[in-house]
Amino acid sequence: MRARLLEATVELLVERGFAGTSTTLVSERAGVSRGAQLHHFPTKNDLVVAAVEHLAQRRGDELGEAATRLPEGQRRTRAVLEMLGDHFSSPVFSAALELWVAARTDEALRAAVGPLEQRVGRETHRLTVTALGADESKPGVRELVQATLDLVRGLGLASTISDDSARRRRILREWADVLDKEMVR
Amino acid sequence: MRARLLEATVELLVERGFAGTSTTLVSERAGVSRGAQLHHFPTKNDLVVAAVEHLAQRRGDELGEAATRLPEGQRRTRAVLEMLGDHFSSPVFSAALELWVAARTDEALRAAVGPLEQRVGRETHRLTVTALGADESKPGVRELVQATLDLVRGLGLASTISDDSARRRRILREWADVLDKEMVR
Repeated sequence: MRARLLEATVELLVERGFAGTSTTLVSERAGVSRGAQLHHFPTKNDLVVAAVEHLAQRRGDELGEAATRLPEGQRRTRAVLEMLGDHFSSPVFSAALELWVAARTDEALRAAVGPLEQRVGRETHRLTVTALGADESKPGVRELVQATLDLVRGLGLASTISDDSARRRRILREWADVLDKEMVR
Repeated sequence: MRARLLEATVELLVERGFAGTSTTLVSERAGVSRGAQLHHFPTKNDLVVAAVEHLAQRRGDELGEAATRLPEGQRRTRAVLEMLGDHFSSPVFSAALELWVAARTDEALRAAVGPLEQRVGRETHRLTVTALGADESKPGVRELVQATLDLVRGLGLASTISDDSARRRRILREWADVLDKEMVR
């Protein structure tokens, strides 16, 4: 029942945004009584924060799973970047974005979202370092991995209100070539 | 009076977000009667869309003005990136982000925000090309300029819920060195 409530919350965040997500809509969507819902999650913030955690877990699992299907050899960097680009343009990113932006002006939400995003950020960074085979002891490499993640976050934001996939592909291809040159210096 | 209403709208978007911005609050903040406000902007969407246009103008002016103060010579690329990084982490970016995210789930708002953001995107791109002295006829240079703007957008998003300026500076310094190498090839 808990999982159903969290899935319904994520769906509503994607479809209607943070403001359009109410506890009433969530209980209807999940097919769970109001009483049972309130027992698990007394407030909207409890619900969305738990949904963020659930999301974070799912984001990590999805990425980790995608990482196992990456090709070896010359095309690997491009494939890593495409994987990250797709990930940061998915509905799951939209739901996270809704919470992120709502947290900007909601202190209680920010207190929960901030540390969680830091943890997710660290995990995504670690996964990217491994996938790229990056050696962070070399000067500048750590910053380039971080830049890569900030780039795909920016591309994800650009893709939220229009299909930006062709432009994204061109940019990431070029970025991959730069990374390949810079990481081996 | 129109300008006062638009400034008040931008301020409220920054402070309270899209959902927390109401026409009542705007008229109070601007010191304009409800009647006069409704005459200029019949609905909340009319008001926020006009505020986006106003914002876009201000974003362009601010950047153009900052671009005239850039140093020449070796430090220029770093200075350009710092200027863009600061710009995309300013309150003006937060207000734009609020509209951007609200537009994702509001079709009428999206119809107004989409084309405007495209126009602003093109202008920012042109300004960046000029500031960097980039030659887009060379292969890959256009994509690297676009990547730079998506990177600062991603950094801007990261800075909305915590102060990220030290990390941003390190990343942009490294990226400036890469750009300097890549643009002259």
